[in-house]
Amino acid sequence: MLNNKKIIRAFAPATVANVSCGFDVLGFAVDQPGDEVEIALNASAEVVIKSIVGDKGRLPLQADKNTAGVAVMSLLNALGLKQGVEITLYKNLPLGSGMGSSAASAVAALIGINYLLGEPFQKKDLLPFAMEAERVACGAAHADNVAPSLLGGVVLVRGYDPLDVVDIPLSGQLYCTLAHPNIELKTEDSRQVLRQNIPLKDAITQWGNIAGLVAGLMKPDYDLIGRSLKDVVAEPIRSLLIPGFNEIKDAAVKEGALGCGISGSGPTLFALSKNYSTADRVGRAMQLQFLKHKLNSEFYVSEVNRKGAYVIAEAVTA
Amino acid sequence: MLNNKKIIRAFAPATVANVSCGFDVLGFAVDQPGDEVEIALNASAEVVIKSIVGDKGRLPLQADKNTAGVAVMSLLNALGLKQGVEITLYKNLPLGSGMGSSAASAVAALIGINYLLGEPFQKKDLLPFAMEAERVACGAAHADNVAPSLLGGVVLVRGYDPLDVVDIPLSGQLYCTLAHPNIELKTEDSRQVLRQNIPLKDAITQWGNIAGLVAGLMKPDYDLIGRSLKDVVAEPIRSLLIPGFNEIKDAAVKEGALGCGISGSGPTLFALSKNYSTADRVGRAMQLQFLKHKLNSEFYVSEVNRKGAYVIAEAVTA
Repeated sequence: MLNNKKIIRAFAPATVANVSCGFDVLGFAVDQPGDEVEIALNASAEVVIKSIVGDKGRLPLQADKNTAGVAVMSLLNALGLKQGVEITLYKNLPLGSGMGSSAASAVAALIGINYLLGEPFQKKDLLPFAMEAERVACGAAHADNVAPSLLGGVVLVRGYDPLDVVDIPLSGQLYCTLAHPNIELKTEDSRQVLRQNIPLKDAITQWGNIAGLVAGLMKPDYDLIGRSLKDVVAEPIRSLLIPGFNEIKDAAVKEGALGCGISGSGPTLFALSKNYSTADRVGRAMQLQFLKHKLNSEFYVSEVNRKGAYVIAEAVTA
Repeated sequence: MLNNKKIIRAFAPATVANVSCGFDVLGFAVDQPGDEVEIALNASAEVVIKSIVGDKGRLPLQADKNTAGVAVMSLLNALGLKQGVEITLYKNLPLGSGMGSSAASAVAALIGINYLLGEPFQKKDLLPFAMEAERVACGAAHADNVAPSLLGGVVLVRGYDPLDVVDIPLSGQLYCTLAHPNIELKTEDSRQVLRQNIPLKDAITQWGNIAGLVAGLMKPDYDLIGRSLKDVVAEPIRSLLIPGFNEIKDAAVKEGALGCGISGSGPTLFALSKNYSTADRVGRAMQLQFLKHKLNSEFYVSEVNRKGAYVIAEAVTA
């Protein structure tokens, strides 16, 4: 039992999964926004979500139903520890937005608990615990949000058997605009609209594009990134759930974006740009188009993140 | 009309298309073997295949049915030239082998005629003429053999509308073993066994792998190359046409190959290795396995080519 109470504040960034042609395998993190947690050990044997700020009361406070709680319990289980933990969750990411909200909460909590326990795990080894939390949040233990939120950068989840997470080194600067309309889509619903079989020719187009995107990011070749940011598999179907999708995408590209697509399973859209000022103009253009379709939206502009989740601060009270 | 007769000898290398997970979009060239042509202008207005050495009389001598002839005529057409041309074709590549035999003949002829005409085209602009020849040879204007044979290196054909040919820069050394059993498969037949629709989950596996392969080649990360060299779409079906496929592949990997798959539409198999001596051992192991399945075979070992097709020599007779 500890005499001093140490409180850790940790941050985990929002993430764009799928990334057009990278459906189900690619994701990247942004610098902002992100979720934060305050986390501390206590003398009990229970993991408790003390409070959640910013969710308007919508997220479960039961630790075994909240991604932050599940992630922490999963880590403690792996260590065979019965340890009391209290978590305050600061939800900065909108729920059901396609910005990796559930992943960010889980990852921030994991970064915090791992630090408090003296870092028994390397950062990348926290992934399975975050994936376990994703299983609770959306029914499948996907890594394409948790991996970039944890590790930063552009991340390829090449496969799951065994888990193979590959860093795609970004050679140049790249800025992301996230435009989030005030509607909600559940990942499960968005998955259900997809077909179980796809034409071979579409699959070939898609893997030509992801190969081009990876090469474009690594070279860097911005034109190639733009030419490759296309999704012929999920976007044609999922975009039907997002009012004005085509006009918004056109407006983003017209304003100078390299490409634009659905972030995760939507409804947030992402656009990539070569510099901050373009990314900012792109955000305004997207917001305007959403308004024309009677939707309020907020947008975020940030460089593609290279750092992942981290401990912001610690406080020790006697 | 020319007084002097200039004869050009040009070489174009064999190529591996598909490259497992890169089905229909990826190809690379090897240093050896390759086809050669001798080509000269004359005072007629016709393109003529004077002779073909090494095909055992199996290839058409009519210029409009021979890929070397079609390619040259296509180039002359684009220039609006009625020019007499005589071509001798040295077929070093086995026919119907999956090593890009038809492509190499077309590319070698194009390199030769372009040189003879004072290089009216840049190298990469010869591609459409070579693709036209592919259309004659196998019914579709594919670029995944002609592009690497012409340009060298690992080449991504991201898409055809418009044609987008992307160089995948190879950071490290990479050696290729080509093992060619003495059976023949026609590209058309090999295409017909493929399904028109594939499960979405297989498509996702495939594009995770091609993304990993491109990243692995560019980093370089040899283990990642090995983990990514998998084909869950074409190989499970096409390999049924190749006796002993699984045993041969296992033998190659056991001998140290990073991976092994079908070259083009087969029956030649390719394997990639980190160094020459491994690639050579891999070839012997593959040959032995073919023998166990009652097939003679020859194998070739060479570094992955970075140069593409080129003029070997010119001779001027008075």
